[in-house]
Amino acid sequence: MATGFTFTVAATDGAARTGAIKTPRGEIRTPAFMPVGTAATVKAMLPESVRATGADILLGNTYHLMLRPTAERIAALGGLHRFMNWDRPILTDSGGFQVMSLGPLRKLTEEGVRFSSHLDGSKHMLTPERSMEIQALLGSDIVMCFDECPALPATEAEVAKSMRLSMRWAQRSRDAFGDRPGHALFGIMQGGVTRDLRQESAKALTDIGFDGYAVGGLAVGEGQEAMFSVLDYAPGFLPADKPRYLMGVGKPDDIVGAVERGIDMMDCVLPSRSGRTGQAWTPRGQVNLRNARHKDDPRPLDESCTCPACTGYSRAYLHHVVKSDEIIGSMLLTWHNLHYYQVLMQGLRDAIAVGRLAGFVASFHAGRASGDIDPL
Amino acid sequence: MATGFTFTVAATDGAARTGAIKTPRGEIRTPAFMPVGTAATVKAMLPESVRATGADILLGNTYHLMLRPTAERIAALGGLHRFMNWDRPILTDSGGFQVMSLGPLRKLTEEGVRFSSHLDGSKHMLTPERSMEIQALLGSDIVMCFDECPALPATEAEVAKSMRLSMRWAQRSRDAFGDRPGHALFGIMQGGVTRDLRQESAKALTDIGFDGYAVGGLAVGEGQEAMFSVLDYAPGFLPADKPRYLMGVGKPDDIVGAVERGIDMMDCVLPSRSGRTGQAWTPRGQVNLRNARHKDDPRPLDESCTCPACTGYSRAYLHHVVKSDEIIGSMLLTWHNLHYYQVLMQGLRDAIAVGRLAGFVASFHAGRASGDIDPL
Repeated sequence: MATGFTFTVAATDGAARTGAIKTPRGEIRTPAFMPVGTAATVKAMLPESVRATGADILLGNTYHLMLRPTAERIAALGGLHRFMNWDRPILTDSGGFQVMSLGPLRKLTEEGVRFSSHLDGSKHMLTPERSMEIQALLGSDIVMCFDECPALPATEAEVAKSMRLSMRWAQRSRDAFGDRPGHALFGIMQGGVTRDLRQESAKALTDIGFDGYAVGGLAVGEGQEAMFSVLDYAPGFLPADKPRYLMGVGKPDDIVGAVERGIDMMDCVLPSRSGRTGQAWTPRGQVNLRNARHKDDPRPLDESCTCPACTGYSRAYLHHVVKSDEIIGSMLLTWHNLHYYQVLMQGLRDAIAVGRLAGFVASFHAGRASGDIDPL
Repeated sequence: MATGFTFTVAATDGAARTGAIKTPRGEIRTPAFMPVGTAATVKAMLPESVRATGADILLGNTYHLMLRPTAERIAALGGLHRFMNWDRPILTDSGGFQVMSLGPLRKLTEEGVRFSSHLDGSKHMLTPERSMEIQALLGSDIVMCFDECPALPATEAEVAKSMRLSMRWAQRSRDAFGDRPGHALFGIMQGGVTRDLRQESAKALTDIGFDGYAVGGLAVGEGQEAMFSVLDYAPGFLPADKPRYLMGVGKPDDIVGAVERGIDMMDCVLPSRSGRTGQAWTPRGQVNLRNARHKDDPRPLDESCTCPACTGYSRAYLHHVVKSDEIIGSMLLTWHNLHYYQVLMQGLRDAIAVGRLAGFVASFHAGRASGDIDPL
């Protein structure tokens, strides 16, 4: 890996692995869940609280930060870590996925993507070279290749064409990135749900050589079954001695299934976004705190949880503040969800370490089948 | 005072006093500033963070809580302290002031006020007896009399008539409150800006006898000069051995002027509300973080401040998150403002204790005259 980085697999259990990525800014225990700090903040959380949940690394979004406050401004202010008061590792995406989501506001060429800002309509261009430049200005520890991901539904031919463009961009990203000690570059496998395309993409990336490899182009609406069927083979196409990162995933059961299939890193806005809409994730499943059945319930959201929301408040209180649109509702439920995700990751790591992943997964599913709380 | 309560004046400096109110739930250092937790939350703050700023007591709003989640529900859940996870003293207002603010949605009679909820239009009645009942259900430590405050502009005759109604309601509040060990009842002086009416109101209240006395009907649009001219005499009409509480005040310079005139307690939504709109209060005056001049400024909001916003972030970052409507902007600026207010109160207490209030006040005004930050 890049200078200053090591990846060690300490134990495996089936396809699953546990270990750690050592970086100059601290260790990332794997499998790792990365909270998303889109605009230089994990929404409704102070960074010390994010760390208190057990997060080793955050994800930052190139697209959002390049538009506001701009990568150049963040660089002048000492980089993204200092700007947002988070001194541990940060992974930045390349901007490719979010630019793709702009739909008609973007124009794709071999060179890159021209697009209009969703904030003010201003014109911008993202290329592999510009994406590498922005991520360097941000001071990202783990930089992602600039890639293209076709919107679904897409024909196999469209997916193949897009994947091959992404592979040419991967080479250009690698060339533009150069050698930056203390900073790692990850490639992104594409190829949709087609095994041959995934294999072709994996070969192209490993021929170039990266510090880690992402599985891209999943969690874009294909459904869990299709995603898992790709994850049944795709991680095996990638080097076993490098971290494998599944982008944009997911719900707790997506995460468990991905880890079972050999994934080491994931990110998703779900725990934080859910927290802002009154949704909570627990070992017993998803809980909608807006539901009136909570309004007189003196019990905690999750009796087994040690987060501030569960140790300090009743379901009745959480219901009240969610219904009243009070900011503390977003703060407490985001904290809870991020805490739950990190507890889940620790459980997965511990289970893999002792070769008991199957039992852990069975217990995970049994808990979810039990209903979110006992009747009062 | 009520069983379990004592008020001790430790030192005076001119009309100003410093001391403490001891309550069964902890000591309130005076002069005290009480953050407002309208709907069972100080907006954008966890209660442990409010405590960390130095707050000894919070204010809760009867009007909001009686409508949602209802006082009966909070009582069934163990009271307001437990509900909102704050175990120190809580003062609740009587609902009178907020019902008055409803304007055409309310109807005033000798019996009380009939009004429609701003949430769902449902009909409610507040009387002195019902206000005492609600505040008891909430478990408030310091209960306020139910009073009426005329909307400005009002003639002297209207103010007199309203004040006399409030004094009859004060007697009914006292009678309805009864004897509740561990809970104090405060009367509220009215009378607008008319000295004779203030004196008449003070006499009516002291004849009834309360554990503390509020100066009501100020900070309702009369201006600082008129408010101070009332405070030049009104506190002197009240018993020196009981706490004097100025309701709904105010800006930092209002607070300093009120303390100079013998006020022991104050509350205001200003520091928290300002924090949610990008406004900060510092020893050098008010700062609008939305202003573009901050966008490249690496310096803290206030170099002398030890709050999380000032120790962890630049003005540039605060500008970015305020402009981006990120929740962390409200969280950090509310924390800063509440911290600043408590530092100001500690400064006032310390200055009074050593007989140096005049010097402290001169320095306070000089700081504000110096501009909010040096040019870059």
